[in-house]
Amino acid sequence: MAATVLYMSMSLDGFVAGPNESLENGLGDGGERLHSWFSNAEGPDREVVDESLTTGSVLAGRGTFEPAGGWGGDHHDGIAIFILSRHRPAPEFAQWPNVTYLGDLEEAVRRARDAAGSRNVLVHGVGTAQRCLRAGLLDEIQISLVPVLLGEGRRLFEHLGVGHVELETVRVIQGRDATHLRYRIRR
Amino acid sequence: MAATVLYMSMSLDGFVAGPNESLENGLGDGGERLHSWFSNAEGPDREVVDESLTTGSVLAGRGTFEPAGGWGGDHHDGIAIFILSRHRPAPEFAQWPNVTYLGDLEEAVRRARDAAGSRNVLVHGVGTAQRCLRAGLLDEIQISLVPVLLGEGRRLFEHLGVGHVELETVRVIQGRDATHLRYRIRR
Repeated sequence: MAATVLYMSMSLDGFVAGPNESLENGLGDGGERLHSWFSNAEGPDREVVDESLTTGSVLAGRGTFEPAGGWGGDHHDGIAIFILSRHRPAPEFAQWPNVTYLGDLEEAVRRARDAAGSRNVLVHGVGTAQRCLRAGLLDEIQISLVPVLLGEGRRLFEHLGVGHVELETVRVIQGRDATHLRYRIRR
Repeated sequence: MAATVLYMSMSLDGFVAGPNESLENGLGDGGERLHSWFSNAEGPDREVVDESLTTGSVLAGRGTFEPAGGWGGDHHDGIAIFILSRHRPAPEFAQWPNVTYLGDLEEAVRRARDAAGSRNVLVHGVGTAQRCLRAGLLDEIQISLVPVLLGEGRRLFEHLGVGHVELETVRVIQGRDATHLRYRIRR
């Protein structure tokens, strides 16, 4: 069955966005630094990017999707995109056939797994990651650890309320511009 | 000249101790999980431990030193130990010839470097790390990243107040029980 895999770029001090995030400043101040490895990925960094693009569906929150312009309605290869949201999409985000807004986490995960078939589900965004972790619906975590201290911003792992969670280190890839750490969540 | 190198074991979610730290519970609840790789280190994990024991002096805070029983007055090989503290040591920590309590950060770093000679200075503890980082007195960071989410506790990188700090990844060693990441601080 499809595994749900969280893909995030994180600073060594645990931030996935800088401060002052907004719809127009989706990564926060200085947050684009966390994605620079991605923009010019070569060699091992490129392999990690390419692997993420073999996923069969996307599950993300509205707070990730909308500031990113909804990825133009196509994250990659026209795969199905499921957006967790208590609200209906604004008109500009409701126009794409591959995009489905859903309010219920379990339904969203089930539909994302179904859509992915034998491939994995790419999970993205802090809120969705935290909700999936809490509900025991996240299978793996792929962190691209960027050699920088941002000092402030939004943390990936905060207010988890899950207690102690053991991980299994599946793989460590040292790229030119980031260290790619892959973990499986032990249950 | 001797480099100041911070050695810390940290969970993937950024904690170096569990909650409820006290003199009797120095690592906090569940914090000993962060040190299990160290207790039975073999292979690459062992190499990282052995390397840390080639340092020529120790610089730590009172909050690290005293709950650890002052390492019995000898961290390793009888090297000089400098403890940052605004207070004089309690009698049980004032008995060792290698241990010096100092109130001034710059003096402590200078004396630790002098004592280390051509070797490095082992820096340890959250408060001392943060103060050295802020003052531009930390040269390298060696994080042993432990595959666990603790959920709560004391973070290593918090309230830094240093803004954006670029790091250079010097080395990544995958051990059996931790991933050892070494960074040089760019200035």
